[in-house]
Amino acid sequence: MNRSEFAFFHPLRVRWAEVDMQKVVFNGHYMLYFDVAFTEYWRATGLPNSQVQAREGIEMFLRRATIDYQASAEFDDELEIGMRCARLGRSSMTVQGGIFRGDTFLVGGELLYVYADVAAKKGVPIPTAWREHLATFERVAPETA
Amino acid sequence: MNRSEFAFFHPLRVRWAEVDMQKVVFNGHYMLYFDVAFTEYWRATGLPNSQVQAREGIEMFLRRATIDYQASAEFDDELEIGMRCARLGRSSMTVQGGIFRGDTFLVGGELLYVYADVAAKKGVPIPTAWREHLATFERVAPETA
Amino acid sequence: MNRSEFAFFHPLRVRWAEVDMQKVVFNGHYMLYFDVAFTEYWRATGLPNSQVQAREGIEMFLRRATIDYQASAEFDDELEIGMRCARLGRSSMTVQGGIFRGDTFLVGGELLYVYADVAAKKGVPIPTAWREHLATFERVAPETA
Amino acid sequence: MNRSEFAFFHPLRVRWAEVDMQKVVFNGHYMLYFDVAFTEYWRATGLPNSQVQAREGIEMFLRRATIDYQASAEFDDELEIGMRCARLGRSSMTVQGGIFRGDTFLVGGELLYVYADVAAKKGVPIPTAWREHLATFERVAPETA
Repeated sequence: MNRSEFAFFHPLRVRWAEVDMQKVVFNGHYMLYFDVAFTEYWRATGLPNSQVQAREGIEMFLRRATIDYQASAEFDDELEIGMRCARLGRSSMTVQGGIFRGDTFLVGGELLYVYADVAAKKGVPIPTAWREHLATFERVAPETA
Repeated sequence: MNRSEFAFFHPLRVRWAEVDMQKVVFNGHYMLYFDVAFTEYWRATGLPNSQVQAREGIEMFLRRATIDYQASAEFDDELEIGMRCARLGRSSMTVQGGIFRGDTFLVGGELLYVYADVAAKKGVPIPTAWREHLATFERVAPETA
Repeated sequence: MNRSEFAFFHPLRVRWAEVDMQKVVFNGHYMLYFDVAFTEYWRATGLPNSQVQAREGIEMFLRRATIDYQASAEFDDELEIGMRCARLGRSSMTVQGGIFRGDTFLVGGELLYVYADVAAKKGVPIPTAWREHLATFERVAPETA
Repeated sequence: MNRSEFAFFHPLRVRWAEVDMQKVVFNGHYMLYFDVAFTEYWRATGLPNSQVQAREGIEMFLRRATIDYQASAEFDDELEIGMRCARLGRSSMTVQGGIFRGDTFLVGGELLYVYADVAAKKGVPIPTAWREHLATFERVAPETA
């Protein structure tokens, strides 16, 4: 992955507790980093928060994640996490993330989120207003399925 | 995934701190569960520990992970994590994991580990003795690439 | 602290992700260990779970914790966490924890829990039945304030 | 605790994964927050990093921690963590931390660090240059024992 693929970046400094005996960030914590960056990406779009609106019974759920480990982050590294909406389906959304230290690509992620009714366990259409908003927010409009 | 695909299971109880506001295990923690189960799987094979032998400069690194979220684990659930070596390459190994609550499949994982020289950042052949041992340990011998 | 002070122990194996670059369990994770052990202690008493009854608006909250670090736990250590109710107040409870590796005392904790009405933010008397039950469960009856 | 007691603050936003089913930050994670803030406090003093100099065999170890829970932090809260060196002993240091949301005090901590030789497990005098530096850095000079 390349920095130029992303318009949005979230800065994040590696914490002591996130680094293991191999002196690198424990592999599971990159999921945490992507989650933090996704929250900030969503905030940056200006769309209403999808996670905390659980009261209404409709939430964004992670359905699949693929993490590609190219190089390791270390203690105290100042990372930048690129995030973009790559594809918008009817009730799902593919988000790509890239973790960089300077220009060095470390870890990539592809996250498939589903917008769903929690009780019925069924996908719900992503609101049209959200689609239009995301298409405008992204430099490269998300592919539509 | 189905329980019958696995010969090895590690039991694990969901901790309070692992559950989020949606009352389910935070998605990143399943990577932690797979890591714990892999350690126990490896112990069960009787092979020498690959992670703590860092002194010798050769370690197992996670190169890629794909997590498939079908259903959620909840606080206090008694899970069983199936683990098997599905494929053995020259210097890499594909491990499959399946998290179950009773007969219900919750989360699947496919983890590609590379056996590598840390300093040279190069893959190193998995010892022949390990291959034979793993082939014997698994009910279904791992596919060889 | 000494093993003989405890009647209840919970076994716990140190996970890879819990160990830091100093090759010891990160200091904050002992709070997690005490939390896990408290859940198991409470289960062992047979009393109804205080944490998940949030619906009724009354919960056990941690009010103060003191952690005494004597020695460090390491990766893969098989620990035993002793836990006892040392003191029962009107609406509070002092729990003592001790983390051991074999006979070696590693980390001690004193945890003051308050039983409180969440909305009113006020302490609520611990039910008399619970007091009697805890007094019976503990080899040494908790001190009463 | 009061904001005016601190000259140094580190900002920190609560992550989704740090919040539990009671919709508050899990009690053990405040230790993580204090650890992060201490790293940043130390960086701000300009003193050499004490944690990563493990090669030389002398490190700062946490010997005791007391955490005082007054109120809870919630998801997405923008916290400020005050940190100060309250007392400098020969080979130990008492650090006070205070977690605030705006002017509201949430959680306080008192952390006793010991500067020690890892192999010999013995306290080592804190360098005089460090003492003088810390005394200058703090608005209110640390008490000396």
